[in-house]
Amino acid sequence: MTHLYDHRLDVLDNGLRIATERLDGARSVSFGIWIEAGSLHESPGQEGTAHLWEHLAYKGTARRSALDIAKSLDLLGGYSNAYTSREHTCFHARVVDTHLEDALDILADIALSPRPSLDDLAREKDVVLQEIAMVEDDPEDCLMEAFWREMWPGSPVGHSILGMPETVRSFGLSDLETWRSANYRPGRMLVSAAGSLDHDRVRDMVARRFGALEPAAAGARPSPGRYAPPAFLRERDTEQSHVTLSFPGMGASDERRFSMGILNAILGGNMSSRLFQEVRERRGLAYTVYSFANSLTRQGVVQVYAAVDPERTGELLSCLREEIGKLAGGGVTAEELEHARDHLLSVLYLTLESSEDRMSRLARNQLILGRFVPPEETAARFEAVTLDEVRALAAEILDPAGAGLAVMGPEIDESWAGTFRP
Amino acid sequence: MTHLYDHRLDVLDNGLRIATERLDGARSVSFGIWIEAGSLHESPGQEGTAHLWEHLAYKGTARRSALDIAKSLDLLGGYSNAYTSREHTCFHARVVDTHLEDALDILADIALSPRPSLDDLAREKDVVLQEIAMVEDDPEDCLMEAFWREMWPGSPVGHSILGMPETVRSFGLSDLETWRSANYRPGRMLVSAAGSLDHDRVRDMVARRFGALEPAAAGARPSPGRYAPPAFLRERDTEQSHVTLSFPGMGASDERRFSMGILNAILGGNMSSRLFQEVRERRGLAYTVYSFANSLTRQGVVQVYAAVDPERTGELLSCLREEIGKLAGGGVTAEELEHARDHLLSVLYLTLESSEDRMSRLARNQLILGRFVPPEETAARFEAVTLDEVRALAAEILDPAGAGLAVMGPEIDESWAGTFRP
Repeated sequence: MTHLYDHRLDVLDNGLRIATERLDGARSVSFGIWIEAGSLHESPGQEGTAHLWEHLAYKGTARRSALDIAKSLDLLGGYSNAYTSREHTCFHARVVDTHLEDALDILADIALSPRPSLDDLAREKDVVLQEIAMVEDDPEDCLMEAFWREMWPGSPVGHSILGMPETVRSFGLSDLETWRSANYRPGRMLVSAAGSLDHDRVRDMVARRFGALEPAAAGARPSPGRYAPPAFLRERDTEQSHVTLSFPGMGASDERRFSMGILNAILGGNMSSRLFQEVRERRGLAYTVYSFANSLTRQGVVQVYAAVDPERTGELLSCLREEIGKLAGGGVTAEELEHARDHLLSVLYLTLESSEDRMSRLARNQLILGRFVPPEETAARFEAVTLDEVRALAAEILDPAGAGLAVMGPEIDESWAGTFRP
Repeated sequence: MTHLYDHRLDVLDNGLRIATERLDGARSVSFGIWIEAGSLHESPGQEGTAHLWEHLAYKGTARRSALDIAKSLDLLGGYSNAYTSREHTCFHARVVDTHLEDALDILADIALSPRPSLDDLAREKDVVLQEIAMVEDDPEDCLMEAFWREMWPGSPVGHSILGMPETVRSFGLSDLETWRSANYRPGRMLVSAAGSLDHDRVRDMVARRFGALEPAAAGARPSPGRYAPPAFLRERDTEQSHVTLSFPGMGASDERRFSMGILNAILGGNMSSRLFQEVRERRGLAYTVYSFANSLTRQGVVQVYAAVDPERTGELLSCLREEIGKLAGGGVTAEELEHARDHLLSVLYLTLESSEDRMSRLARNQLILGRFVPPEETAARFEAVTLDEVRALAAEILDPAGAGLAVMGPEIDESWAGTFRP
């Protein structure tokens, strides 16, 4: 199967990138304003700054009150949102094509020209403190957050995107503005759009709103940090024991990411995976058990999560050690490779119909790889993965004697800490 | 705007309905096998039966092992799933159009011909017990579940879809099979499909697999139960206080559902709603605050949820009482009506692009109203809602002196129970 993709990349004089893709048959258009400013770009004491700016963006600009912004976004149908990750802040929307310019005007305004007052800041800090408390109240979220932090000791890769209550409380408007003007620079911005669109019109719309931003010298790239396998057991009064493991993975720009995707599918990425079959189907140990490759651009890990009856925690840990050991010890079969590959190709093709997924794929490929990647290239890379490559990768990274481990539950047995030690 | 919709309804001799809609430009097709058998159809002692059957469906049939089923569904790309609600069990998938018959064959097989062994039953009970424990560990889910139960005293409308641990443990295979053969009848089944399809081919595919099912006399409709506003305060060691309210609502087949949709949008259904603006934007009390109309076919309620700093629980409750009182007291403005309507119309039009949403809309309209509803009709009904109707509805149902209330958090003040009393 060969397709021609109607895509384009424009770069404004100030460095801002505009990536567009026209999709036949679409009636809506999805767009995103991506800023390479996330929690990774925060120094000690600044934890939570990028995320707080994502909130403050909605508090009003020179041209719009907070209520105007809320009303306008509601009228777009509620398919507009924003999020902060470790590497990015993203403001995005899906709209009927006739609403594109209005929607872009609002999101560009709030992304570029927020004017929060001191009162806005105080109130929004309270909102974010409740968001932090919400994570604490969810055992899975809380464990995953603590576990990630411990993986990257002394590095901004590790801290919570939401920040800590003490840093959030400490922020003053001028500190926040200093951080923002250093990080919200056109050379670190990309606007992507996919769907029912005209390339020239989108380019002009974006140029009118972003073209006047002053370029700036590229800042130093943040350090990638250094992964260290965590090990902790924490008592908490919950109905289930929540268990997670980590293994050293790779960045989203790593050439081995296709082998990694296949290995993850075999490990715990789908219903016929080793862990789903053994933990849920054969033993009835857990309702939730899965693995995932958790990757930033330059660094990543493979994680496993399961929640289990506290009395069966020891059984789960032995079972995980055994299954992962078998996989690392050369157990991947040709049939498993074929199955995982076909599964991933189906996932790939089904995501191509959604303008949101296309917009996001377009942006990520530009931000991570610096180019447009035709879906057929992705498919061909999965096709090219060999059994030797997957076995070598399994042997290299899935060493059960070096896994990171965390358990949170009502009864803790200290001996569990030794499960994933030599 | 006027469209012609390419849709069709076929009814097999045994009563099974087939609703199909062809969408121009779609490359995938979504389908669902809907069975009018949910937790509402369970008698005391049977709580959790419908949901357990949804799980057992995947444990193998005469033609397929559990592992075969898992592998086949993985290859469809993982866009296949099943769920159980109070009124339905649904097995559904989105697939590339060339995979439609294969996918339908698998889901029809597991929906109609599961053959779980005693071992399968024992293991799957353990899995479901972990699913129940997971809900217990999530404060919002746990509170909402308990609150709903208390709303419908002595009625099967109220009990948990997952069942209780003691009922799930008690089930024997023959009891389960008796329930299933009484409830999985062709007159209570509907297969819907939307996307890239041919009506005749889908009809034939479905007829070949479902046509031999024996028809059965329609069973008695389950009682709709009787809503009673709950009131409970529960201590739990959480970071946030979790608060919910209820008001008497209406069924999804009620003629006032359009006024209800608008009233809910004004109350707490979007960013410019009364509760979002007052609770989050003006007071910074909560990160999460929203309202929703929670409707079955013949009965429903309006609910509010917010999570707050435990020290500010009293402030939240007073604020909710005041805001809801203002809305009930005639406060809805023409501008609010207009805004809520335009918001809901945008949501409606944006959902029309997804074959999954179309398939689900097609099925629900058949199941609830017994007919195809063109999106323009839905739009026209929203257009026709008057300010008097919304005000009358607000006055009728949003009486703050009669609201149901539940609070779960680390510190409980018994006086809170009086907030929503006369």
